[in-house]
Amino acid sequence: MTETTARPVVTAFDWVPEFARGLVRDLRVRWALEEIGAPYDSELLSARAPRPEEYLARQPFDQVPAFRDGDLDIFETGAILLYLGEQDERLLPAGGQPRWTAISWLFSALNSVEPVVQRIVHYDIFQKDKPWAPDAREASLGLCKQKLRRVDDALAGKDWLAGRFSVADIAMVTVLNILRHTDLVAEYPALAAYKARGEARPAYKRALEAQYADFTTETA
Amino acid sequence: MTETTARPVVTAFDWVPEFARGLVRDLRVRWALEEIGAPYDSELLSARAPRPEEYLARQPFDQVPAFRDGDLDIFETGAILLYLGEQDERLLPAGGQPRWTAISWLFSALNSVEPVVQRIVHYDIFQKDKPWAPDAREASLGLCKQKLRRVDDALAGKDWLAGRFSVADIAMVTVLNILRHTDLVAEYPALAAYKARGEARPAYKRALEAQYADFTTETA
Repeated sequence: MTETTARPVVTAFDWVPEFARGLVRDLRVRWALEEIGAPYDSELLSARAPRPEEYLARQPFDQVPAFRDGDLDIFETGAILLYLGEQDERLLPAGGQPRWTAISWLFSALNSVEPVVQRIVHYDIFQKDKPWAPDAREASLGLCKQKLRRVDDALAGKDWLAGRFSVADIAMVTVLNILRHTDLVAEYPALAAYKARGEARPAYKRALEAQYADFTTETA
Repeated sequence: MTETTARPVVTAFDWVPEFARGLVRDLRVRWALEEIGAPYDSELLSARAPRPEEYLARQPFDQVPAFRDGDLDIFETGAILLYLGEQDERLLPAGGQPRWTAISWLFSALNSVEPVVQRIVHYDIFQKDKPWAPDAREASLGLCKQKLRRVDDALAGKDWLAGRFSVADIAMVTVLNILRHTDLVAEYPALAAYKARGEARPAYKRALEAQYADFTTETA
């Protein structure tokens, strides 16, 4: 009898530096899976060895996560979140305006907010020893704050971006957490409360624990 | 008799500076609409006046495009492209691996490639007078080239990212064009040929002409 499995597979790293723990993007996929109680397997990639050439066929940018569900291969967390959303209405309304509002916010998190948030991280962490980093950070701060303020405004009177909890919130909350080394999110009360609300969900906590549990290697 | 219309509406600007013409994101939506021969109306926002407060309800980041189709409001070009893709298989395969490959690449264009491409533009155009801009650009160039090389590799033996032309190509070709002030894309022959192939499509040309035709105001 051939062994078969219905469990989807998410790729993840067996080690990342401290500053990246809890931020690696397989967390977003684990969170969605935990929300709907879907069992899954993680497939660990070594942080010490170059990825095998064939991994590029699954993830052309050589990053995590890649996702496999049966015969289906998907890459990019946005696409994987959308896919999981289409499997379960607890993650994404099935149609009409509610569906498209959630999808609009999903793309917002990844294309309007994350890029400006990543710039701050770029200067604060990856370029922190460069003499120009403070000036460059300052020049990007206004745009980052503007986006945060817009999301904060949009949350007025709402618990979640699209009304009900959805994959858009999984994307946005994890994007906001990229700024955890700063006080930026705390400047926007609705945004800070929203982030805390997301991170208080049991599914988020289980996903985070699962990511940490997979850091099975001591050092790179 | 009440006047009704079945034409979708795309918001656009009535003026943008020269360096931005052909890059404003309503182009992506116009291109998709032109590919399927769907008539649409543009709703022009004044470049000189602040947007009316109610526009934020349609586009929370106060940008273009916002999109309306009947009762449905969608923002973020990625979401609008996905929506149009779901209306017509010429823009997005209806199911299975072909659909998810195209959606994976759609998110790639917007979350893996555009952010690093925008950093180069940030230094070259928006911060070009800053003394630190050349050093900061240099520190972002490696990652930008890495992403371009990965897309170039992925295009080996293919005309389009997901095999057949799709909304992923509309996103990626227009993202690559953000680098038109540089020679970066030309360093990758498959990528450069791909971009030229996209821009040679009659629908792209019609979309570009329509965007320019809407720049009806002389100056800001």
